[in-house]
Amino acid sequence: MGGKPPRSPLAPDAFPDLPEIGGVSFATAEAGIRYADRTDVMLARLAPGTAIAGVFTRSATRSAAVLDCQDKIRFQSEAGAAILVNSGNANAFTGRGGSDAVKAVTAAVAEAVDVPEARVFTSSTGVIGEPLPHDRISARLKEMAEALSPAGIAEAARAIMTTDTFPKGSGAVIEIDGQPVHIAGIAKGSGMIAPDMATMLVYIFTDAAVEQPILQSMVSALNQSTFNCITVDSDTSTSDTLLVAATGASGIRVTENNIGFMEALRRVMLDLAQQVVRDGEGATKFVTISVTGASSDADARTHGMAIANSPLVKTAIAGEDPNWGRIVMAVGKSGAPADRDRLAIRFGEILVAREGWVNPDYVEAEAAEYMKRQELEIHVDLGLGGGRAVVWTCDLTHGYIDINADYRS
Amino acid sequence: MGGKPPRSPLAPDAFPDLPEIGGVSFATAEAGIRYADRTDVMLARLAPGTAIAGVFTRSATRSAAVLDCQDKIRFQSEAGAAILVNSGNANAFTGRGGSDAVKAVTAAVAEAVDVPEARVFTSSTGVIGEPLPHDRISARLKEMAEALSPAGIAEAARAIMTTDTFPKGSGAVIEIDGQPVHIAGIAKGSGMIAPDMATMLVYIFTDAAVEQPILQSMVSALNQSTFNCITVDSDTSTSDTLLVAATGASGIRVTENNIGFMEALRRVMLDLAQQVVRDGEGATKFVTISVTGASSDADARTHGMAIANSPLVKTAIAGEDPNWGRIVMAVGKSGAPADRDRLAIRFGEILVAREGWVNPDYVEAEAAEYMKRQELEIHVDLGLGGGRAVVWTCDLTHGYIDINADYRS
Repeated sequence: MGGKPPRSPLAPDAFPDLPEIGGVSFATAEAGIRYADRTDVMLARLAPGTAIAGVFTRSATRSAAVLDCQDKIRFQSEAGAAILVNSGNANAFTGRGGSDAVKAVTAAVAEAVDVPEARVFTSSTGVIGEPLPHDRISARLKEMAEALSPAGIAEAARAIMTTDTFPKGSGAVIEIDGQPVHIAGIAKGSGMIAPDMATMLVYIFTDAAVEQPILQSMVSALNQSTFNCITVDSDTSTSDTLLVAATGASGIRVTENNIGFMEALRRVMLDLAQQVVRDGEGATKFVTISVTGASSDADARTHGMAIANSPLVKTAIAGEDPNWGRIVMAVGKSGAPADRDRLAIRFGEILVAREGWVNPDYVEAEAAEYMKRQELEIHVDLGLGGGRAVVWTCDLTHGYIDINADYRS
Repeated sequence: MGGKPPRSPLAPDAFPDLPEIGGVSFATAEAGIRYADRTDVMLARLAPGTAIAGVFTRSATRSAAVLDCQDKIRFQSEAGAAILVNSGNANAFTGRGGSDAVKAVTAAVAEAVDVPEARVFTSSTGVIGEPLPHDRISARLKEMAEALSPAGIAEAARAIMTTDTFPKGSGAVIEIDGQPVHIAGIAKGSGMIAPDMATMLVYIFTDAAVEQPILQSMVSALNQSTFNCITVDSDTSTSDTLLVAATGASGIRVTENNIGFMEALRRVMLDLAQQVVRDGEGATKFVTISVTGASSDADARTHGMAIANSPLVKTAIAGEDPNWGRIVMAVGKSGAPADRDRLAIRFGEILVAREGWVNPDYVEAEAAEYMKRQELEIHVDLGLGGGRAVVWTCDLTHGYIDINADYRS
C-alpha cells in the first residue's frame, strides 16, 4: 500500500464523542485480509425490530456485496440483523467467486450472531479484482460475536478505513415529545469519490422507531443533497453503500412529517459527506460551490459538479489562483443551460464577474488573498431561474498524484 | 506565464515538411499581446473561390470569435478570404467588448488583404476574461499583408502556440485522376482538451476543389472519429475551432464519393489530433484506448472517454501500474451499458481479464513490464454487441499539476 500518507490538514481535531444507540453493538477484529497490525473487519449487531434502509452505487460494475445488499433491502423483516464490513479487499470484479464469498460470509455471520441470513448486510472495500479471503473473516466471527459492545463505534470507524487518513463519525441527539432520540454514523472514503446514487461506505444508526418504507424514502431524499453532492476526483466506486438502521430502542416513533428528525439525520449525513471530502486524496483546500439562478435544481447541480470535477479549476485552487476564467469554462462545458452574459461569480464575498465580464471594481489582489484560506466558497449565479444546488469538493494536488501513481495503491 | 515547460517527451522529432497549397499564403508577427520575443499572430490569405468548412466548440460560454465564425460559416461566397489567429488572449468572457474587438479586427483584416469582412475568420487563444488588445494586432496587419508567402505555414504553427511545447503540423499528397492534390494543416492545443464537436485551434488547407456543403459534411463526419476522440484533461475549451479551406488551385474537383481524399484528410486530422495529445500538459505516456463489443459505437466512445478521463486510470498509467481494476471502475461509472461478467481487458497483447475476472494465465510482472512503454494500448471488449470506438489520451502526472497550479498559467 506504499507509505501511509499524513493525516489530512482538513481533518477535524478529533473523532467526535458519539452517543450509544440502543439496540446496536459493535465489534472489530484483525483478520489480516491485506493490512498487518490493524483492524480490518467490523461487525454491527442490530436488535429485532430494526428497520434498515439503504442506497447503493449505480455503477454497472458494482460488487457482489452491493448486489446482495440491494436484493436484501427489499426484504422487510422484524428479525435481528447484522452488518459486516471488511477493508483491504473490495471483492469487486471477482467473477462467480465474488458471489460465493459473499454467501459464505453472510452464512457465517448469520450463525455467529443468530440472525437470518437474509438480514445480514456486507460491504467490502479495498483492492479490486482479487479473491476475498473470506475464511479469514469467518475465523474471527465467534470472538467478535462475544465481544459485541454498544460502545464500539469509534473502533468500527477505524476498521473500515483504506486510504483514509482519519476515521469519520458524526452524531446527533434530538428531543421528540420530550424524549431523547439518538443518531450516530460512520463513513469511509478518500479517493474514487464521485457518488452516484449512494457513496463510499456509510453506516448510520438511530434508536428512533421508523417504518422501513418511511426510513427508505427519507434516506433516498437526503442522500440527494448530501452524499450525492460531493466529489473528490470524479471517479465512482464499485462498492458505494449507505445503510441506515433504526432500532426503535428509544420507543419514539418517527413519521414522515418529523422535520426535527429529518433535519438531524440530514446534518449527520452532510457532516459525514463533508468529512469524506476533507479526507480527499491529497486535499489541502475544502471548497463549497454554491450555484444559484439555474433553470432547475438539477441544472444547478450539473454546473456545480462540472466546476467541482474540473482538473483545471481544482489545480487553480491548489495554486491559490483566483482563476475565474476556468469556472466560466467549466460552466460552459457542463451541458446545462447557461448564458455567458448573465453569469456572475463570487469568491466568498468578492464579486469577481457579472454580466459576462469581470466586475469593474474587482481587485485581483483581494481575491488572491482570499484564495489562501483553507476553506473556500465559490458562488456562481446563472441569472436564468430559481434552480440552486450546493456541492463540496477539494483541490487537486501533487499529493493526489503521489497517492495514486504509486504502484497498486 | 511561469517557466516554459520542456518539450514533451512524446513530441515528434521535427516539424514535418508540409506541401505548399496553391491559393494559400501565410504571414506572422510579434504583436506583443501577452508574450514577449515571440510571434503571436498568424494571418492566412485564401484565394477567391476557396470553400471553407468549420466545426466549433459547443461550450455554452464560447468566445466572441467562435460565435462570429459560426455565423460566417453559413455564408457561402466565392470571394477571397482570410483567417487571423492570435495567441496570448482568448477574448472569451469579455462581455460586449469581446464582440467589438472581433468586429474591429475583422474589419482591419478585410481592409489589409482586400476581402469582404464576411469572409474574415478569427480565433483567439490564451487567457480568459481580459480585454483583447486588438489595436496591437491591427497595427501589424499592413506589414503582414505585404509579407504573405505560401511557404509560411511552419511559422504560422509556432505563432498560435500557448502552453504547447512543440508546433503541430501534418500534410498529405495524394493523386486524383493522375494529378497531385495537397493537404496541409496546423493545430495548437495542450491543456483544456476535451473537444466537444470541434477542438482547440486547427487550420487545414487543400488545393482540391470541393463544394462547401460537401466539404462541411466531410469535415463534420471526420471530426467525430478524430478530434472528438481525444482528451487530455476532460476540460473543454471556450475557443475550440477547426477550419478547413479548399482553394481549388489544383483544378481537381473532389466529390462526396472520393474515398482517397476523405482518407487523406482523415489521416491529417488524426495526426494533428494525436499531436495535441502528445503535447498534453505533463504527459509522459501516449495511450490508445480501443473499445469493442459495445451496444453501439456511441456507447463504445462513452466507455472509452470514461476510461480516458478517469484521474485514477491516468495516474495508474503515470505510475506504470497495470491497475485494471480502475478500468473496470471507469467502465462501471460511464453510464453506458456494461455487463461485469462479459468484460475482457487487454494491455497490448496481454489478456488481463475476461468474463468478469482476472485471466487465470495472467502474469502481472509481464503487464508491469508492458506499462513501462511510452506508447500504450488498452483494449476493452464489452461482449455485448458490435459497437466500437478508439480514443486517445495521455497520463496524469506531477507535470500537469506544476503547469496548472502555477498562479494564472
